[in-house]
Amino acid sequence: MTSLTTDPTPDKGTTIAQIAQEVGVSVPTVSKVLNGRADVAAATRERVEAALERHHYQRRRAAQPMVGTGLINLVFHRLGSSWSMEIIRGVEDTAAENNVSVILSELGGVHRPPRTWLDTTLLRPPLGVLTVASRLSPAQQRQLQRRSIPTVVIDTDGEPPTGVPTVGSDNWNGGLLATRHLLALGHRRIGAVSGPADMLCSRARLDGFRSAHAEAGVEVEESLILPGNFYVEAGYHAGHALLARPDRPTAIFAGSDMAALGVLRAAHELGVNVPRDLSVVGYDDLSLAAWATPALTTVRQPLAEMGALATTMLIDLVAGRTPHTRRVNLATELVVRESTAPPA
Amino acid sequence: MTSLTTDPTPDKGTTIAQIAQEVGVSVPTVSKVLNGRADVAAATRERVEAALERHHYQRRRAAQPMVGTGLINLVFHRLGSSWSMEIIRGVEDTAAENNVSVILSELGGVHRPPRTWLDTTLLRPPLGVLTVASRLSPAQQRQLQRRSIPTVVIDTDGEPPTGVPTVGSDNWNGGLLATRHLLALGHRRIGAVSGPADMLCSRARLDGFRSAHAEAGVEVEESLILPGNFYVEAGYHAGHALLARPDRPTAIFAGSDMAALGVLRAAHELGVNVPRDLSVVGYDDLSLAAWATPALTTVRQPLAEMGALATTMLIDLVAGRTPHTRRVNLATELVVRESTAPPA
Repeated sequence: MTSLTTDPTPDKGTTIAQIAQEVGVSVPTVSKVLNGRADVAAATRERVEAALERHHYQRRRAAQPMVGTGLINLVFHRLGSSWSMEIIRGVEDTAAENNVSVILSELGGVHRPPRTWLDTTLLRPPLGVLTVASRLSPAQQRQLQRRSIPTVVIDTDGEPPTGVPTVGSDNWNGGLLATRHLLALGHRRIGAVSGPADMLCSRARLDGFRSAHAEAGVEVEESLILPGNFYVEAGYHAGHALLARPDRPTAIFAGSDMAALGVLRAAHELGVNVPRDLSVVGYDDLSLAAWATPALTTVRQPLAEMGALATTMLIDLVAGRTPHTRRVNLATELVVRESTAPPA
Repeated sequence: MTSLTTDPTPDKGTTIAQIAQEVGVSVPTVSKVLNGRADVAAATRERVEAALERHHYQRRRAAQPMVGTGLINLVFHRLGSSWSMEIIRGVEDTAAENNVSVILSELGGVHRPPRTWLDTTLLRPPLGVLTVASRLSPAQQRQLQRRSIPTVVIDTDGEPPTGVPTVGSDNWNGGLLATRHLLALGHRRIGAVSGPADMLCSRARLDGFRSAHAEAGVEVEESLILPGNFYVEAGYHAGHALLARPDRPTAIFAGSDMAALGVLRAAHELGVNVPRDLSVVGYDDLSLAAWATPALTTVRQPLAEMGALATTMLIDLVAGRTPHTRRVNLATELVVRESTAPPA
């Protein structure tokens, strides 16, 4: 047996005893590392993890835990606004139906869980891990995999990791629908406040925006596309920037409902009437969209359903069932309210 | 030893062995019941629980769990809107600082956890339980107490249970501040959309509303006080009802920001300009209050701090430390924005 291999197939023959012998520690020590126990020296733990990795050690899943005792981890890069709340509700409902409890964690705004997160998590190994708009590092992913702890990603922030199921919504179609609506109303100068450029979902929405222009034979005015981050402040600042231009757009597609709320606010401050002088389309259909003044035309993405479906997929994986599909994008739809109208 | 006693002092002398003998089961069976194990017949479990209750059996707290493995339960009667999100953030932050994980549960809208909730919870006993706007039944409370699992109530929905610490905000003062502000602007016909009548916090806010009237020598117009439930729809319907009156109020104090959003919506639909024709004050200061159009004058209650403080108190109790105080109401303050002005 070579101690270094590039074969990614789990080395089914390797036992804990062999790992222990190779590293020069006892079998219980290897067990402790696998179980996330704290009473192993950091240096030893690292050597054991390295050996497990070299051998692509794969633990056989133990018997299912008793009903009601199972935990899943739900990891947000940032908790905030009712966007997170909708996903939490979907996850919590489905978990409760399956007698599984949900542990909530927040990564303080970063999209990659720090090392300490996994260390703490493994002290009480969950049945599975759901990450929202964030991903584990390949090393973290392998650490979970070795312990047969599956993961599912909700609304992936980038290229979905191989072998990890993802649940999202059809962002490209959402951008297309929103922009088609504005074009059909007669708008020709349409601004956009995009989400973070490094998130797949915001790139897909913007591509839908471009495709709608292309199919209508309308050129995209690149200078009207401003970067944002889905938060209300970014929409507010972009709204001010776009509306201060002498050749201001007659419509703005915001990257999120929160960003749209910021645009509405900027318009209000500048005395620009929505929808008479400016049409605004949001994205998400949070409950506040219906209650904003004017009520917001937006693209609905089924956040609670995304959370519920991801939880079902995770529980299937835990039970050893193969999910029907590993890439699910739920449909998005346009909800027309009061914030859009033909240009003056 | 009598098997029935009305003395509420824990019967420190009673051992598991005595309970087992009295009920006629084995010691491990009593242990299993205490540990929430599922493999005990329901009838047996009930008999054991009854004996534990008769003797006010009190388990001695075991050694503290390893860092990072502790769980606390955060129980909402209903998850929704960014109100819950704010509390969750405060709890999650403080729990993470203490290396404790948070399990989130929702009771589906009821303010009393059903029996199944506790059964499931005890299968994996948490260090402690935080309930939000809901309370355990006295029997559930005693079941947790017997297992040395402390509870803290955030924003209690009614009379705080004896011995259970509560964290809230100064609702009476909030109602007083909001109403004083409207009276100082010159309003004399002030409507109110109250919260649920059975929740202490809404009764306190309404009493503050009345006290502000009394100190200004202005009579409260009782017919302008409509019942609500903190949700946006209730504010919307109450707003319509109040504004349809020929002698409509010139100002409305809404029970929550969400209710205020509903009032703003009703005003918008009826062509009533806020703040020119109608002043509106909300309650909570959710982030949307600052971004509403017009930006909402509201009473800020520090929801995240309430969550953080309750978590600190719970962790103190878990560690055997006595909290400095068992009844904490954090200060509320008025935040004046655009939705209030002198009457026309």
